[in-house]
Amino acid sequence: MDSKVVERGALENEKETPQEQEQEQVVNPWEVAAKDGGKIDYDKLIDKFGCQRLDPSFIDRVERLTSRRAHVFLRRGVFFAHRDFNEILNAYERGEKFYLYTGRGPSSEALHLGHLIPFMFTQYLQEAFKVPLVIQLTDDEKFLWKNLTVEESRRLARENAKDIIACGFDIRRTFIFSDFDYVGGAFYRNMVEISKRVTCNQVVGIFGFIGEDHIGKYSFPPVQAAPSFPSSFPHLFSGKDNLRCLIPCAIDQDPYFRMTRDVAPRIGYHKPALIESLFFPALQGETGKMSASDPNSAIYVTDSEKVIKNKINKYAFSGGQDSIEKHRQLGANLEVDIPIKYLSFFLEDDAELEHTKKEYGSGRMLTGEVKQRLIEVLTKLVERHRRARAAVTDEMVDAFMAVRPLPNMFN
Amino acid sequence: MDSKVVERGALENEKETPQEQEQEQVVNPWEVAAKDGGKIDYDKLIDKFGCQRLDPSFIDRVERLTSRRAHVFLRRGVFFAHRDFNEILNAYERGEKFYLYTGRGPSSEALHLGHLIPFMFTQYLQEAFKVPLVIQLTDDEKFLWKNLTVEESRRLARENAKDIIACGFDIRRTFIFSDFDYVGGAFYRNMVEISKRVTCNQVVGIFGFIGEDHIGKYSFPPVQAAPSFPSSFPHLFSGKDNLRCLIPCAIDQDPYFRMTRDVAPRIGYHKPALIESLFFPALQGETGKMSASDPNSAIYVTDSEKVIKNKINKYAFSGGQDSIEKHRQLGANLEVDIPIKYLSFFLEDDAELEHTKKEYGSGRMLTGEVKQRLIEVLTKLVERHRRARAAVTDEMVDAFMAVRPLPNMFN
Repeated sequence: MDSKVVERGALENEKETPQEQEQEQVVNPWEVAAKDGGKIDYDKLIDKFGCQRLDPSFIDRVERLTSRRAHVFLRRGVFFAHRDFNEILNAYERGEKFYLYTGRGPSSEALHLGHLIPFMFTQYLQEAFKVPLVIQLTDDEKFLWKNLTVEESRRLARENAKDIIACGFDIRRTFIFSDFDYVGGAFYRNMVEISKRVTCNQVVGIFGFIGEDHIGKYSFPPVQAAPSFPSSFPHLFSGKDNLRCLIPCAIDQDPYFRMTRDVAPRIGYHKPALIESLFFPALQGETGKMSASDPNSAIYVTDSEKVIKNKINKYAFSGGQDSIEKHRQLGANLEVDIPIKYLSFFLEDDAELEHTKKEYGSGRMLTGEVKQRLIEVLTKLVERHRRARAAVTDEMVDAFMAVRPLPNMFN
Repeated sequence: MDSKVVERGALENEKETPQEQEQEQVVNPWEVAAKDGGKIDYDKLIDKFGCQRLDPSFIDRVERLTSRRAHVFLRRGVFFAHRDFNEILNAYERGEKFYLYTGRGPSSEALHLGHLIPFMFTQYLQEAFKVPLVIQLTDDEKFLWKNLTVEESRRLARENAKDIIACGFDIRRTFIFSDFDYVGGAFYRNMVEISKRVTCNQVVGIFGFIGEDHIGKYSFPPVQAAPSFPSSFPHLFSGKDNLRCLIPCAIDQDPYFRMTRDVAPRIGYHKPALIESLFFPALQGETGKMSASDPNSAIYVTDSEKVIKNKINKYAFSGGQDSIEKHRQLGANLEVDIPIKYLSFFLEDDAELEHTKKEYGSGRMLTGEVKQRLIEVLTKLVERHRRARAAVTDEMVDAFMAVRPLPNMFN
């Protein structure tokens, strides 16, 4: 699992036909690329994937069921699509519990803001619904796809676990595991149950694997599918095969769970429900050419205040006009403006966001002022995260990752 | 892993071209079929697989190194091919130890004589060389290939473990494990290391998988490969990554280990050595059409004396002549005679076997007499196995399968 920053440009490993390559956006767990010169078309994606748009009625319902304000990512449509989220809420309303499952592929030392989104949202869901959570660190996936050793992947998994724990998860309700450590027993048996029910042709169709790809790739999808079934965690959910699972993730992970939902009823489980987010845009904009390996395309949780300030001032794509005169007259184009996008993800205050958009869009506010506010918001966020992470000890990581029962996970 | 009885006839799932289907023998881990109307051509197989014939000099050398008579399966060429067996003996001569690895796919309740061959031979190797042994029960494989539930596969694994233990393995030197129980941790990490180094095209080429096959099949070869590397067993071989592995098996398992040997040096291990057996012929003969699902084609370790007698008298293909007169005149054709073949596997006394072959081949001995001797030999063998198996308790199975260090395994 991973949280994508939008990428565009030459698609070296693209598996579709050359014609499709030119014409269509590509979204899969390893690549997110908009159609040439444009932005990701999320309506088209929902249509292609066959999931549902999360309409505003869900926000009210969630607020009613949890007796608290919906998370900003829900109010602002960052989580914008779902599969069977209504079923989860129906069950919850009847007094049935569920569990949350999310994850991360630990391929880098430091997380950027896009990586934090599913975890910030999942932390909210856990707190609001008071439900258990399993977090999968797919160190095996990153070893298979990247040029990493097993040991390096496992080390990154533990490092990333610290960032994840820093998001505020409740240790009484959270089990974090690395595949390289946890795969086995009931979890392996579920992997094999799933593998038996997915053909090679199907994974080729879903993930675009080719004959030259190693079989590690073909073997991996069941590893990401298995946590969707409660029996993969006998220390948590023994005898609770009927427990439903809700998966918050970025929408590029949808292919894994389409596969999983196809298998689920055939092996006696509920289909996992999904709540899916947009991709977090690069600093250079949703339409600008960027590389994921370019550290200037994203804000990292390790960036200092000075670096954040510099990155935003220098690289954050502005929808403002070329001259102050023209800006005062025409206003900013909010559709392409990255500071406004970022504020819509991370500025909590709805009224202030609305005010800023209005003032900036009309030209009364300048790009510099909006960027200044964004620098404040992100510096505060990153500073808070850094403090929280510094407080995460190795013992805490061990505690979150211990294979143990969670007797109070539903209280 | 499994030990094959020779099969012939219509090859429903044959992946080769129709032309090849008619002309060539098929030997892979799931199917053994001779060329139409003939016997398995082992020379051709050695040539195709690229292994070596085990020449008689090995027998002397093994006897010298172990200070005891070579096993009948070695003396009579039942184990007839190898890969790097000389390297194992060289290392042993230098004072280096090695470990043995064999296994079984637990798809049936009762084993037949063919299934016992690798275990009888491995027991001898363990005793003669005084080395540790790991025995893999591939319950995952049988679940994936057969119409079995996970639970049924696991149950069969334990039942088969009792038959295996009854072959006389030394508990101080033997670790038996079921994949469904043991896969995980260091073993899983090795599976993934292997998976990363084998392409889809390669397993298609080696095993004949097709696009409609489920991905469980594509995922399995690394599971059978992993025990070839000592680091898959940290409780046994921690810090002994240089330990060599010798695999006694029927030659149909060679494809798995060709793949494994290709990967081994790329991940820092010795290539596993192999010592490979012929297939055990069906009662109806090596050239007769038979079905593995026909209980009358094999002697099972659960067959009573009466059943053994009946099966041999009724079904064991005879090389004798149609009439006594003709037989006295021409003698038996030993090349196709099943009682003689079976005696050459299981009659310990070399002199008696030679005498029987001479008398029978010249016509002085009749089929009935040879069959009578075979009935005695097999009844005794099966009776001994049955008594040994009845003495195997569930506690003994637990003890052999416990994940534990074996401090005296090299003594």
